[in-house]
Amino acid sequence: MTVVSVSMAVRVGVVGAGIMGADHVNTLHRYVSGATVSMIADVDADRAHAAAAGVPGVRVTDDAFALIDDPSVDAVVIASHDATHADLTLGAIRAGKPVMCEKPLAPTVEECLRVARAEAASAGDRTPLVSVGFMRRFDPAYQELKSALRAGKCGTPLLLHCVSRGVRSAPGATSESSVIGSAIHEFDVVPWLLDAPITEVGWQAPRSAPEVTGLQDPQLILLRTADGVLTTVEVFLNARYGYDIRCEVVGDRGTLALVNPVRVVADTELRRSTGYPEDWRPRFADAYRLELQAWIDAVVAGDRSPLPGVRDGLTTVAVAEAVIASMNRGGVSTPVRVPAV
Amino acid sequence: MTVVSVSMAVRVGVVGAGIMGADHVNTLHRYVSGATVSMIADVDADRAHAAAAGVPGVRVTDDAFALIDDPSVDAVVIASHDATHADLTLGAIRAGKPVMCEKPLAPTVEECLRVARAEAASAGDRTPLVSVGFMRRFDPAYQELKSALRAGKCGTPLLLHCVSRGVRSAPGATSESSVIGSAIHEFDVVPWLLDAPITEVGWQAPRSAPEVTGLQDPQLILLRTADGVLTTVEVFLNARYGYDIRCEVVGDRGTLALVNPVRVVADTELRRSTGYPEDWRPRFADAYRLELQAWIDAVVAGDRSPLPGVRDGLTTVAVAEAVIASMNRGGVSTPVRVPAV
Amino acid sequence: MTVVSVSMAVRVGVVGAGIMGADHVNTLHRYVSGATVSMIADVDADRAHAAAAGVPGVRVTDDAFALIDDPSVDAVVIASHDATHADLTLGAIRAGKPVMCEKPLAPTVEECLRVARAEAASAGDRTPLVSVGFMRRFDPAYQELKSALRAGKCGTPLLLHCVSRGVRSAPGATSESSVIGSAIHEFDVVPWLLDAPITEVGWQAPRSAPEVTGLQDPQLILLRTADGVLTTVEVFLNARYGYDIRCEVVGDRGTLALVNPVRVVADTELRRSTGYPEDWRPRFADAYRLELQAWIDAVVAGDRSPLPGVRDGLTTVAVAEAVIASMNRGGVSTPVRVPAV
Amino acid sequence: MTVVSVSMAVRVGVVGAGIMGADHVNTLHRYVSGATVSMIADVDADRAHAAAAGVPGVRVTDDAFALIDDPSVDAVVIASHDATHADLTLGAIRAGKPVMCEKPLAPTVEECLRVARAEAASAGDRTPLVSVGFMRRFDPAYQELKSALRAGKCGTPLLLHCVSRGVRSAPGATSESSVIGSAIHEFDVVPWLLDAPITEVGWQAPRSAPEVTGLQDPQLILLRTADGVLTTVEVFLNARYGYDIRCEVVGDRGTLALVNPVRVVADTELRRSTGYPEDWRPRFADAYRLELQAWIDAVVAGDRSPLPGVRDGLTTVAVAEAVIASMNRGGVSTPVRVPAV
Repeated sequence: MTVVSVSMAVRVGVVGAGIMGADHVNTLHRYVSGATVSMIADVDADRAHAAAAGVPGVRVTDDAFALIDDPSVDAVVIASHDATHADLTLGAIRAGKPVMCEKPLAPTVEECLRVARAEAASAGDRTPLVSVGFMRRFDPAYQELKSALRAGKCGTPLLLHCVSRGVRSAPGATSESSVIGSAIHEFDVVPWLLDAPITEVGWQAPRSAPEVTGLQDPQLILLRTADGVLTTVEVFLNARYGYDIRCEVVGDRGTLALVNPVRVVADTELRRSTGYPEDWRPRFADAYRLELQAWIDAVVAGDRSPLPGVRDGLTTVAVAEAVIASMNRGGVSTPVRVPAV
Repeated sequence: MTVVSVSMAVRVGVVGAGIMGADHVNTLHRYVSGATVSMIADVDADRAHAAAAGVPGVRVTDDAFALIDDPSVDAVVIASHDATHADLTLGAIRAGKPVMCEKPLAPTVEECLRVARAEAASAGDRTPLVSVGFMRRFDPAYQELKSALRAGKCGTPLLLHCVSRGVRSAPGATSESSVIGSAIHEFDVVPWLLDAPITEVGWQAPRSAPEVTGLQDPQLILLRTADGVLTTVEVFLNARYGYDIRCEVVGDRGTLALVNPVRVVADTELRRSTGYPEDWRPRFADAYRLELQAWIDAVVAGDRSPLPGVRDGLTTVAVAEAVIASMNRGGVSTPVRVPAV
Repeated sequence: MTVVSVSMAVRVGVVGAGIMGADHVNTLHRYVSGATVSMIADVDADRAHAAAAGVPGVRVTDDAFALIDDPSVDAVVIASHDATHADLTLGAIRAGKPVMCEKPLAPTVEECLRVARAEAASAGDRTPLVSVGFMRRFDPAYQELKSALRAGKCGTPLLLHCVSRGVRSAPGATSESSVIGSAIHEFDVVPWLLDAPITEVGWQAPRSAPEVTGLQDPQLILLRTADGVLTTVEVFLNARYGYDIRCEVVGDRGTLALVNPVRVVADTELRRSTGYPEDWRPRFADAYRLELQAWIDAVVAGDRSPLPGVRDGLTTVAVAEAVIASMNRGGVSTPVRVPAV
Repeated sequence: MTVVSVSMAVRVGVVGAGIMGADHVNTLHRYVSGATVSMIADVDADRAHAAAAGVPGVRVTDDAFALIDDPSVDAVVIASHDATHADLTLGAIRAGKPVMCEKPLAPTVEECLRVARAEAASAGDRTPLVSVGFMRRFDPAYQELKSALRAGKCGTPLLLHCVSRGVRSAPGATSESSVIGSAIHEFDVVPWLLDAPITEVGWQAPRSAPEVTGLQDPQLILLRTADGVLTTVEVFLNARYGYDIRCEVVGDRGTLALVNPVRVVADTELRRSTGYPEDWRPRFADAYRLELQAWIDAVVAGDRSPLPGVRDGLTTVAVAEAVIASMNRGGVSTPVRVPAV
């Protein structure tokens, strides 16, 4: 049938058409109200075209900066390699366009600082341009956990136990990249849950999985927040059995914990079982959708983005650097230093 | 910031601004890509205005037929009282507009037939205009259950156990309205899961909840499908403890069952506990969103709607009438007769 | 080391050394305080000797009545074939010895009556001699369910859902033996939970498992108790996936349900899973132990046995006969008639 | 009825009639085959008489050493205050009687050594006399966990997470007594699960529960075993919500974890919930029963006790002393030194 109507929509350009970028393209196109994907950039043209398939009217380029500056792009999503994040975000700031950069904002505190300072310099009266993709804050389970925590359901929080497990690490993963690329989600979500910054960290090496080479895996990280709460973080990228994110808050009146989302239980062959996903996409599909919807809603309204910003991007990388410092010094307790912007 | 772009969007008129209609307005406006809500009709102007709050540009009327015929309305959602469904759907057919009518299509087989025949008469080469809001088919849990069933995860299905419980019945609820308004979801979803129509039904009265008057509650309904599978359906509108929908398929190699969605578990006061919602909205928020998205996508593309159509609307009401006949005759086994359109 | 002390112990003779009898021998010998197994009878001498292995001082016979009359036997456990239960129990009554007969007391109401009348005739002032092995009453989970029910935790009970599934039926199983041998546990436990007798029953045949021959399996049985509560009972002997007993009580303020006992959960190969046992022994090991302990304690003390007696033995078989009558008459609702003793 | 038979039974003397001792008396008397309780000693005569109520023929004394030497006592259970354990165990060794001493064997390594050396000196060809009450090894859930671990169900173990929470700490509890009295269970069970001794420990103080005074609570303890596996132990005596013991083994192919035993689930007031016990008795009732049964069986048979012995008693206290040393030195990693016997 013929449907023609005019509607306001944010035209989004997506940089990076890997698993994450392609997922964002699909989510923005199919499930986010008020957004269209107008352009996709990737150095690998095949990948870009694959991500563009089924998105009517989208254009493809291998030049991320051209995308950023293109007049058909109102707002930018950065989902390319971590090493490119800072420069691309700086490009979006220069272009004066809202940008949602996947975590980490950059692999080093120094680069994060460059971005933070550029945003500060360019800001004027404007709302800040940069959002950082810590999607867990939009996950309905983490949100319910935070609400229950604030409502005092477990009393005063004393201790947290976080677990972050995946099926296998990406090629080339190192002990450091496990921290900067995976554990960093905990460095964002723990202070967000507790409303208290991480001030001190420690690191421990459990026995390493025998078939894993090139990195210590699993790792055990200890985080101390300013309120005295201690958090244990297990990061295990090659846990094999499934993608599994856990968080338990232990308070003085009880505990609160995330429940893994499952939809069907099967009774077969002397087992009762439910499934684990192979990667993060099913687990956080809603979080990504709601994160992008919240970002687009803010862009449309000209409001301040409810996503984490450069400050969170910088702080989480400062925590990651402290953890790596502890790793390199036999696990000693290490203070977190966040430089002023 | 200024964002101006042109995008195709279906302008939806929503008839009925009660809990269900207001929920559809909110979902269409905030979460469905490619849709805007252009008009809301309700006989209660306050209710209509309340639903319209926060939806820019939407107009309000107390005349549902005016909405249907309005040129600013491309497609119609009907969420008004059951008794109005048939006439409003007929209005949308006359106007040649796609319409998504909440279940039941009408309270009687006779009225459903009128709608079915009108659609057939008007159809020509067109895709059918009428969709019926059996949203469970879009619920990710039911979909996973159906996939697992088709994949043979429990072998050949033999027996189903369905439970449909709510906190309290609506004012004026009767034993009959429990069947036509609540149990009807099972009459749609069971044949959909099994790919087999319901051919015979029975009805039993358990002890009734002491404080409930005016209706038998709970009820136990037995459904026989053409494949010989027997389904037990407990419908209990005043179960008080929470909104709770269960479905277990028992096969010759195992069973498959829905898991209630929970996100947080609390350990407090000598109990480990998770929550139940007070009504259907949290449980089926995703189902409604995905149902409306699928409907809008089909409208935009001019494709046949993937939602159930008049045939399903008619068949489910025929099952309901057979159940009520059994109820009125002491629970005897009663065949289902679906008249030809 | 040398330990010699004198202690009172009941010397038990066990008739039947099949799976159930051997299990009772083991439980009495290893885990029941105050009991020793002095004699084992089985027509199959190998089976009897196998059960006797590891029980010091036990004697073996192929003559059950000799065992019953043997002066070294203080009390008798009957775990032989159902068809022998009545005659053996009558033998124990004649011998004036306490007897714990496995369910069913006998396969027919008529035989149960013979036993009941013999006990009544012989009783005088004595405590009744006959106990019937409905061990579920001693299962800690059923006991907790009953306590919670009595404490009003779910309000007034309205509806029960019972499920009784096993891996595979015994050789020679029939639709009738499923009722008299398996479903009979529900005919005991439902009235015990509700404190109300079963007055009316119905029977339905779901689609039968394709590879099962010689019996209808699964079966759906409806029970009505004198308080108006309706119970659905699914009996499925060839469910294959595991031994699985469920019971949910639906009340007007909530529900209470058994939880299957599991001790370890495994996360492997994209599944989170717990185990099902292959048969009833792990599920009800505690129930059997506590049942036998309670029986032995009563024998030692000369107290009335807290186990179900002939009346329960008779009543449950009367319910079974009513269910079989319904089965043979197309599932019509059938009243339960319990003859006077 | 008259039952008189002669049976071998171990006559047990129980020292200490507090919660633990009274529980042992009850378990031995009511549920352990082959044991009778012949004597109870407690400095508090009321307590001793209360524990003796319902145990026919038992005698009561306030002199523990008189009990140990009494000819009516074949074997001794020590459940008195920790400070008395070593001297009483030494008394039993002198008397040449099997003794089951509750954990800890003694509050200090030095005292444990005295016991260990006395046993070694007195042993000759005899089986060792001393067993230590680490009952978790007899808990069916821990046993299933260990079996699954050995069967390779989670691959090579890399990391363990243990949690030990109670409702409230005993009066006078200190940070040190939390370690020596509660965490010590983990110091036994972790090496038992892994078949590897603990070689190094660390200690961390989370935020302390606001209303708790006189001790750090919760505590976080890190254990390193000789195989490189790292174990996190949370000990939280004032967790308030319930008695809750958890253990998860993370391997390179999956994880295995204890499931808390629950029997009934309730759906009420918008919650689905199961219960936690208020103390350790319901959680470990089976473990204590099976531990005592295994001990009695060994005593009767003159076999070596399958319970942990002095070596385990000594080693666990050595770990506890290392943890307390770490606590006193700001949490630094501390090696475990177990002196030679």
